[in-house]
Amino acid sequence: MNSNVPPSSEMDDSPLYPSFSLKFSYPLCFTRNAFAAENLTFVSEVKGDHKGAVPKLQFFIDQGVLDVNPELANAITKYCSVHELNLVDAVHPVPGGEAAKNQIQIDAIYDLMLAAGMDRQSFIVAIGGGGVLDAVGYAASTFHRGMRLIRMPTTVLAQNDAGVGVKNGINSQGIKNLLGCFAVPHAIINDAAFLDSLSARDFRSGFAEAVKVALIRDAEFFFWIAQNQQALNAREPRATHHLIKRCAQLHLNQICLGGDPFEQGSARPLDYGHWSAHKLESLTKHALSHGEAVAIGMALDALYAVEIGLLNQAACDQVLAVIQGLGFSLWDDALISADGQGNSELLVGLEEFRQHLGGRLCITLLTDIGKTLEASEIDTEALLRARDKLAVQAKRENRLARVAG
Amino acid sequence: MNSNVPPSSEMDDSPLYPSFSLKFSYPLCFTRNAFAAENLTFVSEVKGDHKGAVPKLQFFIDQGVLDVNPELANAITKYCSVHELNLVDAVHPVPGGEAAKNQIQIDAIYDLMLAAGMDRQSFIVAIGGGGVLDAVGYAASTFHRGMRLIRMPTTVLAQNDAGVGVKNGINSQGIKNLLGCFAVPHAIINDAAFLDSLSARDFRSGFAEAVKVALIRDAEFFFWIAQNQQALNAREPRATHHLIKRCAQLHLNQICLGGDPFEQGSARPLDYGHWSAHKLESLTKHALSHGEAVAIGMALDALYAVEIGLLNQAACDQVLAVIQGLGFSLWDDALISADGQGNSELLVGLEEFRQHLGGRLCITLLTDIGKTLEASEIDTEALLRARDKLAVQAKRENRLARVAG
Repeated sequence: MNSNVPPSSEMDDSPLYPSFSLKFSYPLCFTRNAFAAENLTFVSEVKGDHKGAVPKLQFFIDQGVLDVNPELANAITKYCSVHELNLVDAVHPVPGGEAAKNQIQIDAIYDLMLAAGMDRQSFIVAIGGGGVLDAVGYAASTFHRGMRLIRMPTTVLAQNDAGVGVKNGINSQGIKNLLGCFAVPHAIINDAAFLDSLSARDFRSGFAEAVKVALIRDAEFFFWIAQNQQALNAREPRATHHLIKRCAQLHLNQICLGGDPFEQGSARPLDYGHWSAHKLESLTKHALSHGEAVAIGMALDALYAVEIGLLNQAACDQVLAVIQGLGFSLWDDALISADGQGNSELLVGLEEFRQHLGGRLCITLLTDIGKTLEASEIDTEALLRARDKLAVQAKRENRLARVAG
Repeated sequence: MNSNVPPSSEMDDSPLYPSFSLKFSYPLCFTRNAFAAENLTFVSEVKGDHKGAVPKLQFFIDQGVLDVNPELANAITKYCSVHELNLVDAVHPVPGGEAAKNQIQIDAIYDLMLAAGMDRQSFIVAIGGGGVLDAVGYAASTFHRGMRLIRMPTTVLAQNDAGVGVKNGINSQGIKNLLGCFAVPHAIINDAAFLDSLSARDFRSGFAEAVKVALIRDAEFFFWIAQNQQALNAREPRATHHLIKRCAQLHLNQICLGGDPFEQGSARPLDYGHWSAHKLESLTKHALSHGEAVAIGMALDALYAVEIGLLNQAACDQVLAVIQGLGFSLWDDALISADGQGNSELLVGLEEFRQHLGGRLCITLLTDIGKTLEASEIDTEALLRARDKLAVQAKRENRLARVAG
């Protein structure tokens, strides 16, 4: 900007154009048993560049994680003591899942941060599933205009997708993620030991985003998943680790190389299979998990792509086989539900998605495994035919499952 | 990032290092009567790059501004109609000053945004003093993870300092700006007509930040202020415009060229005279405006710099003369107040500031007009002597004022 002082007699009303660039970066670490005394991953992330006073450290942990890891709180206290970290108080439980994502929880977190005298150089550590990471992240990003946040995702879904990016948020007025912001974490630590205590269903749910990002970005990764279904279903550690790391990397590639990390445009480039998934989650009142809904949504959109001549049947069959092979159902009766006026809820969901995008549809469709295009119109007749074919496919699946069982 | 898929048998637990750069820029426009039908400044900022649907537009306006500009709401409605802008509802009043900066107001703003169906491509226009801009900015930056914000500051202080940067915030639990975030506005429009209705006191208060930034960054600008005191006190438009624009530019230079626009370090490079000002504002329960408190704080720190041999007396005299010449008082009795234990509130404020910075003082002191250093220690004896000299100086000023009057 021009730094000359013009004489006071001149009225220079040309605009100023302040501009600056910011470089953001953060490590996504992979470890096991992060709070074992000899594990230095965590301590190296909080003993970084600070000068002077040792920064304060405060932990917020998913209640569900505390329940199945009864030694965790003690391990953290001991770890901080051994490594001379400035842990300011006992670890704080946060309700898991969507129960974390509301203003009441945020206010409770603010109160605890304030009572502990946390400042902008302090570290907030969030341990949990995507809901807890979203809520604690939002509180941490708005307290004193942003503290240093360390995320430790504890589910497959959070470790490969929901917990590795730059967003946070809470629900409000019945709308998912109505409030939130973009905020870059200080570090993310994926601790594989947390996955051991997941139920089979929660474990599997995290596979859906891996299948999704493979389908739209990386055919080689898709075929790797297809070949390693058994190892993944058996929760074999190496296969699980690779699935998580590659999925996380593909998501981070979108953030880092996609040109719009803070999503200022209206594109939703990673939302394959998600438009109907959002509606299915809401129609089933979250009886379907996000991963289960995305699995159905991906299958539906693959059949739709065949129906309009975009995708060949063989590729679609591969998609459906992998989704089923990982243990997902292809069907939920919400797909054929109707609203009070007799309208297909599925088509209502499509219209809601159009409005959500600001009036113009933008739906990612497969043209091949690993290849996509963005559709701005959906042929609703073809969509309903695709849904009916999905019903047939799902029935066949169930019959085969009964025969096998 | 590496995009090769390793074979599944390898357990590659090396970290990923996502990183990206974001370039931020926004125009700071100068105009007069922005909502006169023929004025194209506003319309050119909202009819920018959007494709498809015309983005929605919603206005939140300082109640104090509406009170003294009774035609404003109508002018905005007419302007939007003439220029075919998508104004979604009537303009919304927001209480002025600190009364805007609380969660109740934020929730009310969220409700109005939700009712109007605002999305991430929509524009929120905030018109008012620093308090309203801070509050509406915070609401706009957290709704749907951030809408497009246009700020129209209406006071000298907001146009040259508080309203031109990248911060927002609200007060909570009695702590100023406890909640907030960094968010880059879409555009800022400084409309000089809003200044016409300011009281003499509010008008003058905005001069303090100009004197401050001149003292620490731009001696030439300081001497320009010294030479143009009469024109500034007479609210001469050209002088006022230059004071605002140069002050805004120096502040923006710090954001854009200072290397830390989102203040991730602990330095507060533009806070000259501010440590005691914050305490004076709080001690007087905001009977002193921010500008009035900063005026006293700058005078105190100039005398302190003389006391410890950092600044020569002649330069200090110039500083005090300009502050007084612009109509500021050099004194408030809060400077000699004591707390319940008989401790000097001024020294208590110094200690609070130290804690606020995380344990290590960092106070900007003058070594000459336009030149500074950062002090990490304060000689409290010398500080109290400087305060007593300020009392003498202020008494002399009052006597002269009485003689003159």
